[in-house]
Amino acid sequence: MKKETTIRAEDTGPGRELTSEFISSINLALDQNKTNDAIGLVQSLHYADLADLLENLAHVRREELVEALRSDFDPNVLAELDETIRERVIDQLGISQIAEAVAGLETDDALEVVEELAADEQIEILESLPENERTLIEEGLSYPEDSAGRLMQREVVAVPQDWTVGQAIDYMRDTNDLPTDFFDIFLVDLSHSPVGTVPLSRVMRTNREVALIDVMRKHIKIVPVEMDQEEVAFLFRQRDLISAPVVDNNTRLVGVITVDDIVDVIHEEHEEDIMRLAGVGEEDDLYSAVIDTAKSRFIWLLIHLIAAILAAYVISFFASTMEEMIALAILMPIVAAMGGTASVQTLTVAVRAIAMKELTMSNAYRAIGKEVAVGILNGIIFATIIGTVAWIWFGSPALGGVIGLAIGLNLIVAGFVGSSLPIVLQRLGFDPAVSSSAFLTSITDIVGFYVFLGLAAALLL
Amino acid sequence: MKKETTIRAEDTGPGRELTSEFISSINLALDQNKTNDAIGLVQSLHYADLADLLENLAHVRREELVEALRSDFDPNVLAELDETIRERVIDQLGISQIAEAVAGLETDDALEVVEELAADEQIEILESLPENERTLIEEGLSYPEDSAGRLMQREVVAVPQDWTVGQAIDYMRDTNDLPTDFFDIFLVDLSHSPVGTVPLSRVMRTNREVALIDVMRKHIKIVPVEMDQEEVAFLFRQRDLISAPVVDNNTRLVGVITVDDIVDVIHEEHEEDIMRLAGVGEEDDLYSAVIDTAKSRFIWLLIHLIAAILAAYVISFFASTMEEMIALAILMPIVAAMGGTASVQTLTVAVRAIAMKELTMSNAYRAIGKEVAVGILNGIIFATIIGTVAWIWFGSPALGGVIGLAIGLNLIVAGFVGSSLPIVLQRLGFDPAVSSSAFLTSITDIVGFYVFLGLAAALLL
Repeated sequence: MKKETTIRAEDTGPGRELTSEFISSINLALDQNKTNDAIGLVQSLHYADLADLLENLAHVRREELVEALRSDFDPNVLAELDETIRERVIDQLGISQIAEAVAGLETDDALEVVEELAADEQIEILESLPENERTLIEEGLSYPEDSAGRLMQREVVAVPQDWTVGQAIDYMRDTNDLPTDFFDIFLVDLSHSPVGTVPLSRVMRTNREVALIDVMRKHIKIVPVEMDQEEVAFLFRQRDLISAPVVDNNTRLVGVITVDDIVDVIHEEHEEDIMRLAGVGEEDDLYSAVIDTAKSRFIWLLIHLIAAILAAYVISFFASTMEEMIALAILMPIVAAMGGTASVQTLTVAVRAIAMKELTMSNAYRAIGKEVAVGILNGIIFATIIGTVAWIWFGSPALGGVIGLAIGLNLIVAGFVGSSLPIVLQRLGFDPAVSSSAFLTSITDIVGFYVFLGLAAALLL
Repeated sequence: MKKETTIRAEDTGPGRELTSEFISSINLALDQNKTNDAIGLVQSLHYADLADLLENLAHVRREELVEALRSDFDPNVLAELDETIRERVIDQLGISQIAEAVAGLETDDALEVVEELAADEQIEILESLPENERTLIEEGLSYPEDSAGRLMQREVVAVPQDWTVGQAIDYMRDTNDLPTDFFDIFLVDLSHSPVGTVPLSRVMRTNREVALIDVMRKHIKIVPVEMDQEEVAFLFRQRDLISAPVVDNNTRLVGVITVDDIVDVIHEEHEEDIMRLAGVGEEDDLYSAVIDTAKSRFIWLLIHLIAAILAAYVISFFASTMEEMIALAILMPIVAAMGGTASVQTLTVAVRAIAMKELTMSNAYRAIGKEVAVGILNGIIFATIIGTVAWIWFGSPALGGVIGLAIGLNLIVAGFVGSSLPIVLQRLGFDPAVSSSAFLTSITDIVGFYVFLGLAAALLL
């Protein structure tokens, strides 16, 4: 949630859309050194759109624009920026201006900016903050990365459990440092543990004299401060939550997580899954430097290289077979392609199901059985298609039979290994999205080549 | 949002966790025909957890449990179920009980259940609903699938723009058919067009005599009823929205979309992306039947087969070259594997960036340039590694040079085509996630084999 010092109308800007034409006109203004025109153009942008614009500009243009905006740079833009770009903007603005900006953010956004900084910069910024704000951010930094503690906002609305609706309304009208926007009131007991939540819409609809405890949701989901953000996101999605109380190890209420931050977490976690499946780093995006991107992809390419060399080694056993029948060498890539495609399909479904908590140990056998059945079905169909193609192409029904058999078997292996491997890896504590794919391709390649060339050596020569 | 007829405490259930042990004890009770034990166990479950439980049980067990729960089956469970399972449960419960259940849901949830039914079942259910509810659902069905109109809830809190905070509070206290939970009050003009929103927390904190118009957010995001849900989700994420007003073609306020539904949309859309990249249908999950899954994967396998046959055809030009130097046949899979891995990496990053609206025509050249640069960097490194391996393995520095060159070039091609192809496809109106991958692998395979075998024919023999 964003911090605003006073409530007033017209606080979100006219919401101009970021069209290509708009970006072009900004670029043009900067090109022609018409700084004031550029400032004029972006002045009415919502901070989220301004962040998008900065991400979209080339390095030099972005630096020019940030420089132009320097004196009235909206701190909320910082929290919205992509990490790589944020770092550059922070460097450019300089630590003293960042300190000022951080002071203008709510704790969750401030923490997001501060946690990305180098240790010495963190100290410098923290020292320049008012004491109570500094304490809150230091506490936030003490929680594990990606935990509820890093995500929560410290400003909460908590009232004693024996209050009435009327008392709560009067308290809210009279208190100045409430969060700008909030959705639930938390009822706490004498030890400041949350005992229930009252959605604001219920407070609204209930008469002043009614006790809050009579309209509260009692069996609420309470988030421990150390809970992983992925778990928190699961809770929110499962229960359609808008906000949830966060408690420390003594079950004292210490903060609140709101759904807008969860939307970002869900995004991040999905991003991680899809990126890991493809073997690219999570921070591999348009904005990261060429060298960082190349590095982040190197390991994955290397692992696949090793797997491919292993497969080539298997093939080398059959060098003389291939010399006698070069059609085998020609058809080999088809064996690899089909096994690879089928395993990526199975793997993706399994990895997603694990991430969604749909695939667990209690239904693992059923899931694996299903994938094997799918492998058998498509295996028979593709064995027939490819067998026929090879027969016609090379005029050898036996060759057709051999490649058909190899590919049919390969699809079944892909179904079995593609579904069981991620389950086993997950069980062993590895991330199935990261570790499965190279493994799997190498298994289907080796099985495929071995069956194909081995059968050919035994039956065709 | 869920519908509740009266506000009361303890309305969300004790939130028991769905552990493996819990599922086992349900299975055991059902196995031993102790139906009452099973009912006792699930009675205290939250409807979202009960939906998860039903998804987790084997077909027969699920049918037994649904039968046991029949008379007091919570309609909210229906809205939470996976589509495939939901269809089966609906079939089992029968149309008349479903009609009753639908009447107990808010319009957005009811619509979600009804839109999945066959046309004749829809008519039957609609006929059994009270008139005003039927009209709302019929209207909902008239909007395009995946549009804001299908997503919105019709129950909104809208008040005239000249009201004060006090008038709004009195209205909310006195009106019975408000939505159970809501987060914003919408101000409308005389033609019922939304002119601003007032978050409830602001209503709370403001004195009764203040005019709503003085504390409203004026420049709000208004969602046209036909807007695609992906666009709506983008708006919510971009602006940290909790709810947004939906308007018809005459800008009249017709409903509200709340963030809990958007969380589901974000999930679905991500799911679609990741599934499409891997070539599996979006409804390909643990619950769909073997035959449906096999069918949904067939096309993708077929496309990859055609691409692989094309690559094999290219290889066949060089049959005599390979016969003379069988090492070429042995090394070939390495060329294909490296090109394939690099293109999946590039493609995934590009497809994600397009989906996130980070990659647009205005920065396309920059993005492609970056991917080519990454390709050159890793191309040089892997050319060296593989060249050296091949040299040592086969004792031929020339062979090492040829394969190194082929793979280096292949990584550059993967970077260029992997980033430009999805941009072009998107521009032409295709979904880049669906259409890119087979294309791309086939391009890198063919380029790789052609360069590798062609250079070998020219230089080595």
